[in-house]
Amino acid sequence: MGGATETMNPAGMNAPGMNPPAAPAAAWAAGAGWDVTPDDVEAIAVGAGILGTGGGGNPYLGKLQLLRYLQAGRRVRVLPAEAVPDEALGCGIGGMGAPTVGYEKLPAGTEMTGAVEALARFAGRPLDFVLPGEIGGANGLMPLIVGALLGLPVLDADPMGRAFPELQMDTFMINGVSPSPFALADVHGHAVIFDRIRDPYWAERLARATTIAMGGSAGLAMPLLQGRQVKAFGIPGTLSLARRLGQAVLAARAAHRSPVAAILQEVPGVHLLDGKVVDVARRTVQGFARGAVRIEGLGPFEGQGLTIEFQNEYLVARRVDAGGPHEAGPLLACTPDLICIVDTETGEPVATEVLRYGLRVSVLGLAAPRQLKTPAALQVVGPRAFGYDVEFQPLPGDLLDRPAEGG
Amino acid sequence: MGGATETMNPAGMNAPGMNPPAAPAAAWAAGAGWDVTPDDVEAIAVGAGILGTGGGGNPYLGKLQLLRYLQAGRRVRVLPAEAVPDEALGCGIGGMGAPTVGYEKLPAGTEMTGAVEALARFAGRPLDFVLPGEIGGANGLMPLIVGALLGLPVLDADPMGRAFPELQMDTFMINGVSPSPFALADVHGHAVIFDRIRDPYWAERLARATTIAMGGSAGLAMPLLQGRQVKAFGIPGTLSLARRLGQAVLAARAAHRSPVAAILQEVPGVHLLDGKVVDVARRTVQGFARGAVRIEGLGPFEGQGLTIEFQNEYLVARRVDAGGPHEAGPLLACTPDLICIVDTETGEPVATEVLRYGLRVSVLGLAAPRQLKTPAALQVVGPRAFGYDVEFQPLPGDLLDRPAEGG
Repeated sequence: MGGATETMNPAGMNAPGMNPPAAPAAAWAAGAGWDVTPDDVEAIAVGAGILGTGGGGNPYLGKLQLLRYLQAGRRVRVLPAEAVPDEALGCGIGGMGAPTVGYEKLPAGTEMTGAVEALARFAGRPLDFVLPGEIGGANGLMPLIVGALLGLPVLDADPMGRAFPELQMDTFMINGVSPSPFALADVHGHAVIFDRIRDPYWAERLARATTIAMGGSAGLAMPLLQGRQVKAFGIPGTLSLARRLGQAVLAARAAHRSPVAAILQEVPGVHLLDGKVVDVARRTVQGFARGAVRIEGLGPFEGQGLTIEFQNEYLVARRVDAGGPHEAGPLLACTPDLICIVDTETGEPVATEVLRYGLRVSVLGLAAPRQLKTPAALQVVGPRAFGYDVEFQPLPGDLLDRPAEGG
Repeated sequence: MGGATETMNPAGMNAPGMNPPAAPAAAWAAGAGWDVTPDDVEAIAVGAGILGTGGGGNPYLGKLQLLRYLQAGRRVRVLPAEAVPDEALGCGIGGMGAPTVGYEKLPAGTEMTGAVEALARFAGRPLDFVLPGEIGGANGLMPLIVGALLGLPVLDADPMGRAFPELQMDTFMINGVSPSPFALADVHGHAVIFDRIRDPYWAERLARATTIAMGGSAGLAMPLLQGRQVKAFGIPGTLSLARRLGQAVLAARAAHRSPVAAILQEVPGVHLLDGKVVDVARRTVQGFARGAVRIEGLGPFEGQGLTIEFQNEYLVARRVDAGGPHEAGPLLACTPDLICIVDTETGEPVATEVLRYGLRVSVLGLAAPRQLKTPAALQVVGPRAFGYDVEFQPLPGDLLDRPAEGG
């Protein structure tokens, strides 16, 4: 390659001008919401891990990164989704790629800010907000890192209320919001913007190919959204829910109380099993971690057992007799309801990629948000969408409602 | 998927407004250049095929499409590159994908206009011109189709003077022009814009992955260029050269004269062999057509023979004794000089993907344009860049100069 790089800066090119945030954001930010503290970060990491239902990546590295930014004096403001003006412009934030890749190729944060800035260049104006593309797992913290780096407020809402493996499994997509424009970026600063993409399945296909070419992980800013779309189709309060869940688990841990009981005081759900992991089958297929885990009951659950099938996330839990034949029995819980595995002692969420023989765990089923249980949503996030010949049998309640006393 | 599609049209979004062309283009277009006639299309298709050196795809389908547009009353204006204002904005045009895919998945034209329009949306203004991303093969006609559909003038210049298989093999890239922003689009209207791409190798990697996800072929608008960059680094006159070569071949064919002699009256080069294809080895690897062909001499070339190795294009020609051992002998010609195979009777170019046993062909070596023979260029387009342990031995002359009398 000869000579110096020719810079391309014709008169009509858009300048990003992302930092400081645009005037509208500053205006509606005043007075509402909460500033993220280091304690909040610890709590959200635990809560997002639980809502990750085994997937969405481990929040640990993002937590360290965010704590470092807060210690360096950066601020992150979380705003209630109801407060966002109809015409404000923003996007969802997440990492794309198999969680197993994230253990070797650590996220830098700049993948995500690069994606947001590319989307702003394409829109021809700075963005006013970001929100989690999924609250579950590592992605629950990613918008906070972007908020800290770019000075943008983070909306307290997401389109999943948990983690899901594919882009179409999102309440914006389910309700017909266009998946594009959206952007992917990598740690080298490369940005790829997708426009006029027919449907979220094509978005998934094209974005997945780019992510693999980028080395298996990328920052995702998707979709470009107006405030009114967040209010109409988002699941409000999920960032606060992650914080509340995490706070409950951390408080129980400190007081040597049961973290499972603490979780079930915050969200409607069922305590399915305490037990020991006795078998794990796992393979990475086309960028996804697929497999099944079998858990046999201990203590009060002695003699009981269950299997859980997963595709990045835990998707279908069925009863099996402990020590008995391996054929799975009655359905206990299935997607979109949340199947969560936590360490029985600490309440620490257990992701599919760290499952191993002998682990002592508790299994919970939590009721999905109502936005995932409409007929249109179930076509996309119900068990049949993942290839399981199972009818969805909802656990009672809504993830965003406090459980009834004694529930 | 529920409900109607939510349209996304915030105030700041760019509207394309591509047709009619912008005012600057109209101003500098007056009086210069030539309007493309149906006879020009026939000639350019033949000439671009010869300059394709076996690759770049077959211009046949593009020819039919362009003739149809001209018959329907659309106009295409070719303008000399010298006439373009420094600050005018445009892009190279081409198809991306293995030529073998193009035989089953016919190009529609809208892949390329979609890519141009996406790049204009990103730039925030209409473009003023297009030019061939490579003059050789099907890509020589593609900018004319875009010009006809979008009403944009086509510059008489390109960055290869022939066909090459990869994006970095381009005089803009060789001289340090940024590969991005650039855009790919498919027949479904999906557009993908690549920005802040570090170098053309990364551009190649990311664009190739997207092309494969789009089904193996895509329209490419690359790079976004200013007029001054075309004038500084482009190879001027290559569209006229393709027309002139094609006119010479078609005239010779009509007069039952030798098309090979007619070609060598237009460009400096060497008549390497007339003969018969006796062996072809071919495989499609990672989207490329790779292999080798062996040709044995006939008539005045009886007793002589040669092998040519190809990677989409013919790259290295070596002498072999006809009927003798298969080890290749002395080098006859190699990249970036053009190795062209044409039908001995008709002068019709023979692409790598239609090589077959028994074909009667003539082999020519044509001198590369000087812009491909600088030390910096040879690092990218010389034989070693393709993995051949061969020193470039240039044929005398420059592709854009008329050959000396009797040469």
